[in-house]
This record gives sequence, C-alpha cells and structure tokens, in this order.
Amino acid sequence: MNEKIIEEIRRKDKEVLKRLKEWAESILEKAEKEKDLYIELPTRTLSNVIWDEEKGVILMGEKLSRRYFLNIAHAKRFLQTVWVASRIKELVEEGITSSLRDLYYTVKFTIPGTRENLVDEQRESDKAIEDLETMLNVIREEFHIMSQGGKGHLAGPIEIEERVPSPDGKHRVTEVDGTMLGMGGWAIPPIVEPERVHIKKVEAEFVLVIEKFASWVRFHEDRFWDEYNAIIITGGGQADRATRRLVHRLHYEFKLPVYVLTDADPAGWYIYSVYKQGSINLSYLSPQLATPAARFLGLTISDYHEFKFPPTVKIKLKEWDIKRVNELKNYPWFKKKEWQREFELLEKEQFKMEIEAAASKHWRFISKDYVPAKLEAKAFLP
Amino acid sequence: MNEKIIEEIRRKDKEVLKRLKEWAESILEKAEKEKDLYIELPTRTLSNVIWDEEKGVILMGEKLSRRYFLNIAHAKRFLQTVWVASRIKELVEEGITSSLRDLYYTVKFTIPGTRENLVDEQRESDKAIEDLETMLNVIREEFHIMSQGGKGHLAGPIEIEERVPSPDGKHRVTEVDGTMLGMGGWAIPPIVEPERVHIKKVEAEFVLVIEKFASWVRFHEDRFWDEYNAIIITGGGQADRATRRLVHRLHYEFKLPVYVLTDADPAGWYIYSVYKQGSINLSYLSPQLATPAARFLGLTISDYHEFKFPPTVKIKLKEWDIKRVNELKNYPWFKKKEWQREFELLEKEQFKMEIEAAASKHWRFISKDYVPAKLEAKAFLP
Repeated sequence: MNEKIIEEIRRKDKEVLKRLKEWAESILEKAEKEKDLYIELPTRTLSNVIWDEEKGVILMGEKLSRRYFLNIAHAKRFLQTVWVASRIKELVEEGITSSLRDLYYTVKFTIPGTRENLVDEQRESDKAIEDLETMLNVIREEFHIMSQGGKGHLAGPIEIEERVPSPDGKHRVTEVDGTMLGMGGWAIPPIVEPERVHIKKVEAEFVLVIEKFASWVRFHEDRFWDEYNAIIITGGGQADRATRRLVHRLHYEFKLPVYVLTDADPAGWYIYSVYKQGSINLSYLSPQLATPAARFLGLTISDYHEFKFPPTVKIKLKEWDIKRVNELKNYPWFKKKEWQREFELLEKEQFKMEIEAAASKHWRFISKDYVPAKLEAKAFLP
Repeated sequence: MNEKIIEEIRRKDKEVLKRLKEWAESILEKAEKEKDLYIELPTRTLSNVIWDEEKGVILMGEKLSRRYFLNIAHAKRFLQTVWVASRIKELVEEGITSSLRDLYYTVKFTIPGTRENLVDEQRESDKAIEDLETMLNVIREEFHIMSQGGKGHLAGPIEIEERVPSPDGKHRVTEVDGTMLGMGGWAIPPIVEPERVHIKKVEAEFVLVIEKFASWVRFHEDRFWDEYNAIIITGGGQADRATRRLVHRLHYEFKLPVYVLTDADPAGWYIYSVYKQGSINLSYLSPQLATPAARFLGLTISDYHEFKFPPTVKIKLKEWDIKRVNELKNYPWFKKKEWQREFELLEKEQFKMEIEAAASKHWRFISKDYVPAKLEAKAFLP
C-alpha cells in the first residue's frame, strides 16, 4: 500500500481521534468549572424523530438531552459513555477493527470497590456508541466498529480498490474487477468507508438489489450485470449496515438508480424499506445509510395477476404478516397510494409469494423475463 | 475459459446425465416387464444409520426400501422422484445452477385431471432429491442444486482457480490468491466441487475454522494466516454445505489438520460436530461433507479457569442449553471422556462463554494469545 493511501486512512483516523479528544477535554473543562457536570446530546427517542417529506428521509430532530454525572439516574450512563469512548480511542489509535459484541466485553467489568458492573447487557454499550456517534457526528464504522457483516455480495461493471490496513503495519491493497468474480461475487467487507473501499470506476447504469443470496446467484450466473450493465447486490436477507452503506454510496457518489427486488410479503417489503429509509430507531443514521430514491421493482401481489403465476405459488398469510402489514401502512414513505393499494390487495387476497416462485414458469424466468419486463415498463413502486 | 476446463466440467455433467438416464431406463424396462413396478433405494431412517467407530463416521447401512408405483401409499412419492429427476436433467443439460427452493416451485403444480398437487411442501421435493442422491451416488451439488450458500469466507496461503460456467456459454475463470484478499476474504461459492473450484496450490499447514464472521475478521485483520501459515475459514454460524465440503476437501486432498474454534456452549459444540460428522439425518452424505479428523481447539469451560477469564464473561445457561448438552452426550463421537468431562463441567458450573469474551483481556487476545497457546500445547479435544 503506498504512502498516499496510508495517509488517507490515517487522516480519517486522526480526525476521529481529534473529535474524541476535544469532547473529552470539554468534559474535563466543565468538571473543573461547574459543579453540575453533564454531557449534552441529541435525544434519540421517537419524540425527536422527524419525517422530512421533501428529502424523503427520517431525521433526528433538534431536541437535546443532558446527562448529569451527579444524578443517580444518569451517573452510570455517563460513566459508560466515557469508558466506551476510551475503548474506541484504543481501536482507532491501534488501527484495530472490532465488533459491537467484542466492545461490550471490554467494558463489562466490575467497578473497583463496588459490586456493580459498568455494563450488564450489550444494549448498554451499544447505546453508549450511539451517544458518541450522534455527539461527535461520526458513524460507528469510523470508530472501527462493525455490526454484523459478512452477508453482502456484489458483481457487475465496477472496479474497486480495497485497502486493508493491518494493525501490525502490513497493509495491502486488493483490486476487485466486478466482472471477473467467482460465483460468490465480491464479499462486501464489514466496513466500506471511502478510505477503505475506494470505488475507482463504475460503468454500470443502475443497481439491482436482490433480497436473497440464492436468487442473486441466478442473476449472477445469467450475467444479468453484463446484459443490462448493472451492479447486482444482495444483503442475504435483512441487509447488514455495510451493504446498505455501499448501496447508499453507489447512489450518491455515482448517481446510480437503485431498484430493489424482494418477496411479495411484508417481510420483503420491510427489507426494501430498510434499504430505502433505515429503521426508525436509528433514524439519526439515515443520512449515511439510507437511499430514499430507491425504487421497488417487485414482487407485488399485483404481479401475481399481471404475470399469470399458477395458483400453486400462493402462500397463505400468517398472523405475523397481517400484523406487519398494518405497521408498514403507517410508515410515511408507504403512505403513497400505490403502496396502500398493494397492502390492501395482500389483505384482500390473503396470500404472499416468494421470488423463487418465478421458477414455476421456468428456471430463468426471474432474470430473463420478469425483471427485464419491469425495467422496460419502468413499473416501479415509490 | 480454455477447452480443457470446459471439458472437465462437461465430463462431470455427462457422467451425472448418464446415471440419470440409466436409472430412468431401468424403470421403463421394469414397467414393461413387471406388473409390480417399483424403485429400490437405501433406507434413510435412523434404523439404517451406522456409526463406524474405526473411520469415525456415520454411514448409511445396507437396508433397502422399495417404493411401489401401484401402492397407494407410495405412488405419489414415486411420481415425485421421477419428476424431480426430470427437472434435474434440465438443470444439468442446460448448465443452470439453482436452489432447493426454486426446484420445489418447478414441481409444485396440480396434476392434470386431478385436484392434487404433485408436491405441497418443500420437504417433499427435498426428499426426492435425497432419494436420487442415494440411488445414483451423486451429491446434490453435482445436480447443480445449492442449499443455502453465501455464508462462508476464507483467507490464507492458498491459490484457487474458480471456474464459473455460464448457461449462455460465456464461461470465465477467476484466480484467487488467498493472501491478497479484501477484508471479507473469498466468498466461498455455493458449489465447490473440484471441477468448479480447482485448488492449485496450498502452502498452509493447517485449517482454522472459526464459528462467527466477526471473530474471523479479527484473525484475518491480524494476518493470523500469515504468521501461522494457516487457512482461516468461517461458516458464519451454522455452516452451509459448501463451507463444510471445502473443509472436507482441504483435509482429504491436502492432508491439512483441521481445528475448530467456537463458543463454549452446546450450540457452538454442535457446530463443531456438524463440521466433524455431519448431521445424523444426512448421514449418507458424511463421506462427502464430514471431516471426522477435525479437532476442537476451544472454547471450553475449562478454558475459563485455565486462562483466568473475569467472572463477568459468564453467561447463565438457558433451559435450551441443558436440553442440548444432554443430546450431545449421546453422540457417539462425544462419548470420549474429555468431552464428557466438559459437558459435566458445563452442567456443574451452569454457565457458558462466547468467543468475543476474549476481548475482556484485550482486543487481540483471541488471535494473539489464546489460539497460539492452544496450538502450542496441542490442547485439542477429539
């Protein structure tokens, strides 16, 4: 890895360390001056979540909360946040990537002189990380923390220079040509920030996101990416953050339209919703992870009729589906009439349908007929 | 892709087609000669499962079952098997790879002139595939059928030539250098049969299998594969068939010892068990998927004491853990006293422990201290 790239990675790390340090110093300063030591941070409850109609994103509002060191209800969380910050400093300084779960164990110790653990549940250290993300305006990947990872796969006309820094100094660079990959494609790494995943060249005209890995293989084997000049991505079910972040980057940095293909059921539509908007709980991350301009390609219950599928593909709805679709109905981005119609149709006809059902027509119906027809007709849902 | 490779892939396909054809002809022949048309196949119930102590594998016994066309209890299954065989013939002839779920939909149709579906549940088409695997002595990957896939990752001193045939004739070859990969490693493809995944060169001295992706990243980022000359593999939790098959191939074709690292709990030990022996229900596949010589590196409850972990890493057992460990106790390969001791220790101390708990010592304790110490001491369980 050449010096320029190493410098680029270090620059980001230095910036993060600078913010951590300034934040810590501001606390120290307050501690010396004020009796009532506190940290102030954006409120992350539903009451502070805003639906920005125009931009089409959920955003964090302006409300701030204070966490007092000398308030018995706040003290522990105050301490947790500070401790987690110090662990994060180690990660960034030492160039180590770790996971939420690992971090949890590094702060799960008994506070000396007490019988109290600093944290008992991972939820607590996760919350502390979220605190720091919002206060410092840094995403956890920039703290070198991965969530899950290992689920995303990609192929298509794209060239990537993946830079893999090593805590022991043996950095390396991998060149990825998305048209020359094996059957598993490129394993989307757990952190895809620009300084690590440098996208060199994109010839594709759009991104097709496919819910499941096995269906993605169908498109990959059929060289859909070649025939339609597209990047094909799967998150392997519910997508991890890295996959969503990469879709986001492809849209914003390369202006690629994003189309999403899922099962025709509330679970599939929710997966679309997460690519598009993120989850309501993590709304403050929407600016980095969401792709509000994503469009839904299919499947819908209308497609069942449109494409004349045989009745044997129908799967009876479960109670869970009904419950879920009622939740979806209330999401701001699903308020559009096209979606409301689909939700009603699902409830009326009482069945759902999977991507794999397309095989009932013929093996390659999904990649050779269905998706091309939808693209041709621009038959997308908002 | 050069002609020689294409020929190699076709040779396997031709062999499979030949077996399918001979099998179909034998049925036709019987149909003409005998009144009582049947197919005969190895029994796959537990009563026909044999534990081969010496080889250390579960095998299918010699018992055969007959399925009669004119027996009302057998007729449907007879028909399902024949239909599924005809679908498989399409896949192999056309060079298409598909999934169990897709195949299910291709045979889920209403039998003309009746109100009966050929299959109603995926279980039925899966069983038909298993019938054909055992009768023709072919594994389903050779039928071009993948199960799940997309979960396995690999890195280390290994060179692989991955051949990706295309149903439309645009075959390609990808060269994989396991020491030059990105942070996600090589995405283990859903089918790793030798004609598709040609292992060119292995310099590694052993294989380390790591239960979870995030823990695998720790070893990958620390270049464990470089320092210890090892191939590191993860199946991302419960491994898919492709990952197990690849571990099997590395052991049998390259004589590499295999060490497995999981959580210290019944779920982790079961994951080890599946790499080692396969599942009891699919015992007939053990010869292709299992690696009975695999050794368990850790974690164990003994390690908690040995490595002086802090008590905060302990996780209280759930009812499920107790139930599971009682099942494990009766697996033939867990009858060894070392394992029985660990099971008893778990029950006595009533806690379990995760790989990530190692971070309680320091971020890189698992890759820099724990695993090296275990390897050095050859402290493996059978």
